[in-house]
Amino acid sequence: MVDPKTVLRNLDELRSLTSDEHGAQRVAWTPVWLKARAWFEEKLKSLPVEHHYDSAANHWMTLKGESEKTLVIGSHLDSVPNGGWLDGCLGVLAGLEVLTSFAKEYNGKPPYTMRLVDWADEEGARFGRSLFGSSAFAGSHTIDADRVRTDREGTTLEAALQGCGVDVDRIGESCREQKNIAAYLELHIEQGPILEKLQKPLAVVQGTKGVERWAITFHGQEAHSGSTPMAARRDALAAAAKLALEIRPIARKHSQSVATMGSVKTFPGIVTAVVGRCETTLDMRDLDAGILAEMLREAREASERFAGEERCSVEWSKIWSIEPIPFHPDLIQLCEEAIVETAGVSEQLPSGPLHDAAEVARIGIPTVMMFVQSLNGLSHNRAEDTNRAHIEQAVIAFNRLAQKTIGCWTQHP
Amino acid sequence: MVDPKTVLRNLDELRSLTSDEHGAQRVAWTPVWLKARAWFEEKLKSLPVEHHYDSAANHWMTLKGESEKTLVIGSHLDSVPNGGWLDGCLGVLAGLEVLTSFAKEYNGKPPYTMRLVDWADEEGARFGRSLFGSSAFAGSHTIDADRVRTDREGTTLEAALQGCGVDVDRIGESCREQKNIAAYLELHIEQGPILEKLQKPLAVVQGTKGVERWAITFHGQEAHSGSTPMAARRDALAAAAKLALEIRPIARKHSQSVATMGSVKTFPGIVTAVVGRCETTLDMRDLDAGILAEMLREAREASERFAGEERCSVEWSKIWSIEPIPFHPDLIQLCEEAIVETAGVSEQLPSGPLHDAAEVARIGIPTVMMFVQSLNGLSHNRAEDTNRAHIEQAVIAFNRLAQKTIGCWTQHP
Repeated sequence: MVDPKTVLRNLDELRSLTSDEHGAQRVAWTPVWLKARAWFEEKLKSLPVEHHYDSAANHWMTLKGESEKTLVIGSHLDSVPNGGWLDGCLGVLAGLEVLTSFAKEYNGKPPYTMRLVDWADEEGARFGRSLFGSSAFAGSHTIDADRVRTDREGTTLEAALQGCGVDVDRIGESCREQKNIAAYLELHIEQGPILEKLQKPLAVVQGTKGVERWAITFHGQEAHSGSTPMAARRDALAAAAKLALEIRPIARKHSQSVATMGSVKTFPGIVTAVVGRCETTLDMRDLDAGILAEMLREAREASERFAGEERCSVEWSKIWSIEPIPFHPDLIQLCEEAIVETAGVSEQLPSGPLHDAAEVARIGIPTVMMFVQSLNGLSHNRAEDTNRAHIEQAVIAFNRLAQKTIGCWTQHP
Repeated sequence: MVDPKTVLRNLDELRSLTSDEHGAQRVAWTPVWLKARAWFEEKLKSLPVEHHYDSAANHWMTLKGESEKTLVIGSHLDSVPNGGWLDGCLGVLAGLEVLTSFAKEYNGKPPYTMRLVDWADEEGARFGRSLFGSSAFAGSHTIDADRVRTDREGTTLEAALQGCGVDVDRIGESCREQKNIAAYLELHIEQGPILEKLQKPLAVVQGTKGVERWAITFHGQEAHSGSTPMAARRDALAAAAKLALEIRPIARKHSQSVATMGSVKTFPGIVTAVVGRCETTLDMRDLDAGILAEMLREAREASERFAGEERCSVEWSKIWSIEPIPFHPDLIQLCEEAIVETAGVSEQLPSGPLHDAAEVARIGIPTVMMFVQSLNGLSHNRAEDTNRAHIEQAVIAFNRLAQKTIGCWTQHP
């Protein structure tokens, strides 16, 4: 049996070791992150596991089973700066407890091989490249575009990794870890307000939403705010403001879509000039690729209509996109059962945020995630929190999910 | 008689001396500005005038008349960085030609005293404090708030002025120059598109519009763009976008009102977060104090309504304001006559931009300005331009206005 109190105790210990008054500081490729990983290694000493870091700095712990067929549980110890006490590390510490309970239950040799992975740099907080380790594992990382990224002090990603013993030219070798993996499970906090509103502790995650991320710039005519009559203006901000409002009905047509204008910059950006150029960003997400494409088309058409109305022009430039990644239907079913048996009720949600599980699922490994309720929908923030009773339920349900997955393999080998 | 070609020749000469490929660089308190002033001093050598710099660095040239009663003509040689060839210096160089023609016509002793003034730092381009010299003259300058202002390199206003021989503690002594002044005239480019649209070369300026300049900040809740459902958001940008659009119908209710949102800043301002805080600026102007107050009230009410709709709060903080300053009705009449006699047609406009004339009019000195058409409404830009034929008409009409003003005094001493 798992002991959820051990997970809570470890979470508290890690928090006191790696947080300051502003929150968690386990930013990947920094001393605090390395300290968290060293602390974690100590926890492995009493377990019958082999562990090593792969070429992309993912930390793999292996409890060898009767079969080489492998179940992987994973998440990440790294955090954003001023982060919360649960994002990422809950999944790793719950995974450790599941691994521990399996080792005990099967006297160090379960029927199938179990591995726990602590992915490197899920957040991308320092260099703006999230899912670093899991995308290296999945072979979808294109390091050439990222090696020259710099942090705020001007240190390159390449140099920072070297400082942690990682050679960027070899991160692709992480793919070797894919061998024999038959399923991947990840427990994470929701980071949104839905479960709290529904008063449910746990949810099955159906998959990660596809994301379309664009930079949209409106070009008008900079003009003197005092001498330019209203009718003579070509105000780039007016066109952008119309789009900021229009993306909302576009998203609201669909029950789970979101659309966000997160950044607006005005040029020259002074109190005495009509805005000549307005740079904005758009982030749209849905679990359905067709809906996502439709939203994008509608937003683009709206932006062109608004540019025309304001005698401006508009330019779209892609920042990044990813397709929706649905999780495995059989694992979704097992996760639903594990949650209902633990909490009496369940819920199915898509994940708006991306997770390492998306990279794993992308290469065809059957994958599912479980969410535990967040309070006030807050995350990436020291105010991030979850009821301790819900964390305990999550550990129990997640262990059930691992048991059920292995049980399935035993029944249908 | 004035010679408008001399004015054009001087404008060209000053341009080649003080501009680079990006435009005019006569920024106050810089070497290029001092070079422009030194060049201008050379032009005075053949004239029977006394000249000196007052304690606020305003440059005064005096042609003593039979009477001490004084007519002042003025404008400014300083420009914004990358400025145009006409803003400010047209008025000074036209004034020089008017002074020269009066000196000739009256053999060095006109019936009334004539003075030309080149105000110091009208633009406020380096330290963000416009109308520096004229407000010192008018006694409305509060140096204590400004002495610690710094430029982009961190130099304080106090130190920069000291480098130009100006002691900030003594600028108030500039008020002494007010003595005997009975009228003030200023010629300036329009800096807007109205006269070009009306196909008229010249206009009488009715006064300078009042200005209300505010910083408006909306506070919502920063949230993850992927995990926060549309209905759960408190998007500060949405409230700000509504206000950016609403200020336009508020201004359009009145024929000459303008309202501008010139700056929008989003926080955290990243593609993956709903905007938690949105800082905007608002600049509203009208010649009628009642209309201006009404617009301000409407904008404030709208902002509160929008904040409520988006479950945000809103905060208004005053940046600066000035009341509308109407020019003198008798001088407006004389200016109208001078323009009609020169160009056949005239127009009456309020000035949206502020000018040194506003500071002079504020202390009760009868004042009027004349505008000459701008091309494409552009100013503060090297593309700033005016037809040379219109500049010639402006010099002739402005000289007529000076003659008519003195003529009036002669008839009604």
